[in-house]
Amino acid sequence: MAEISLIETMLDSISPYVRERHAARRTLSVSQKSGLNDFLTEVDLEVQQRLITAIRESHPDDAIVAEEEGMDRLPDTAPTRCWFIDPIDGTQNFVRGLFPEFGVSVAFAEHGTLRAGGVAMPVSGDLFLAHRGGGATRNGHAMSVSAVENLDEARVDIDFGYPTQREKTLAWCGEVVRRAGQMRCYCAAVVGLCSVACGEADAYSSIETHPWDCAAGVLLIEEAGGTVTDFDGEAINPFATTTSILVSNGRIHDEILQAIVHA
Amino acid sequence: MAEISLIETMLDSISPYVRERHAARRTLSVSQKSGLNDFLTEVDLEVQQRLITAIRESHPDDAIVAEEEGMDRLPDTAPTRCWFIDPIDGTQNFVRGLFPEFGVSVAFAEHGTLRAGGVAMPVSGDLFLAHRGGGATRNGHAMSVSAVENLDEARVDIDFGYPTQREKTLAWCGEVVRRAGQMRCYCAAVVGLCSVACGEADAYSSIETHPWDCAAGVLLIEEAGGTVTDFDGEAINPFATTTSILVSNGRIHDEILQAIVHA
Repeated sequence: MAEISLIETMLDSISPYVRERHAARRTLSVSQKSGLNDFLTEVDLEVQQRLITAIRESHPDDAIVAEEEGMDRLPDTAPTRCWFIDPIDGTQNFVRGLFPEFGVSVAFAEHGTLRAGGVAMPVSGDLFLAHRGGGATRNGHAMSVSAVENLDEARVDIDFGYPTQREKTLAWCGEVVRRAGQMRCYCAAVVGLCSVACGEADAYSSIETHPWDCAAGVLLIEEAGGTVTDFDGEAINPFATTTSILVSNGRIHDEILQAIVHA
Repeated sequence: MAEISLIETMLDSISPYVRERHAARRTLSVSQKSGLNDFLTEVDLEVQQRLITAIRESHPDDAIVAEEEGMDRLPDTAPTRCWFIDPIDGTQNFVRGLFPEFGVSVAFAEHGTLRAGGVAMPVSGDLFLAHRGGGATRNGHAMSVSAVENLDEARVDIDFGYPTQREKTLAWCGEVVRRAGQMRCYCAAVVGLCSVACGEADAYSSIETHPWDCAAGVLLIEEAGGTVTDFDGEAINPFATTTSILVSNGRIHDEILQAIVHA
């Protein structure tokens, strides 16, 4: 499949640049977008521009939805061919933090269905890829979700997001926080999604995701044998502007859905 | 100072073994200690044994307090010379997780005062060292806490611990969760403490720490210019069996203490 190969090539080729800029991040130019804690760096912009250029070279007529520079407006109806780009998901973690918990996310959808997706974590060197019906891989090896059967021994990543999202997250996911075997919060959708897809965690939830940050990860989870829904247990629409999301290894999905209390 | 050199030598010499076993962790023998989510691996035991052997070679009469194998009993009165060992702090993260968020922690106290401490994070290669009055270093370079002035733009790691600690953590730290600029949860004291000490985060809290997991980190924070207290704002006693802990860059300490509600 041409698109998954293009995704792999693009992620491989962008990773050295991201790694190098992360190593020199003390010199980064960082600005604020919607608020105090919503960052934009020159790296987000450069990565997005390089990915768009690469896609347009071979597919000039495809639609592209991307996080930055006003490219986050979604078409009213699903275009025939559409790409989703999050140049750096986890920008807060790119800017600060002992561990490089961020990634570059690219996905491709056709007629509204996700077909191919990939996430690169350039510092750890991890590359996650999936195409519909073809399974999912981590660094070239087939990967699958975990076999954990119960929430009380599950490793669960609950995304507390920005300060404005905390009250709702505590209200909706508080019971999951209380009952999970291990509770983590990385605040990067790609980290949550890839961790569950490769079996390093058992569930991830966020009260609000966007197509660019979850499209690739959703396909990774599905192709790795996991389950993806919103907080109502319904399928995610990749063209919805925002949605709640719960991903898991499948075995503990209903137990978590029942623990989530929401409006 | 002899003790800080010994700590550095021991951590350097144990790190390749930890790295190698982490890379092969799918073959680990893992058992449960106090509950479903409290793990003990052969690596915890081996690292502890090697560190104890190294200390006893040069200091056969010193007291040693260590997490595993019944060595966690604290003396009634502070011994003249005492070592604190946490062979792997963050064992859950050693066993699972996309990023190697764990460390080996060793500290030395004399007459009840912390004198030297070090934390190695063998996979990322980070080595944090401090001795009383001599400053703190990360990989040989002087380090210091951040300059962030307000909780609403602070990166805060709240340790939610085991399931039995969640209700209390939510009750006591819920307001901090609501107000922090960035909210994270790694559930490894060394990660929280070292992140704050080197300025990669601004605060870390836990409702319950033990001398072996926080002794080295407390000295790192103090020597890096940060502040360490319990939830009452009182100094931590390194010989207390368990204590709540709040560490920060100092500037936001009072703001967080005021947001913590506790019994």
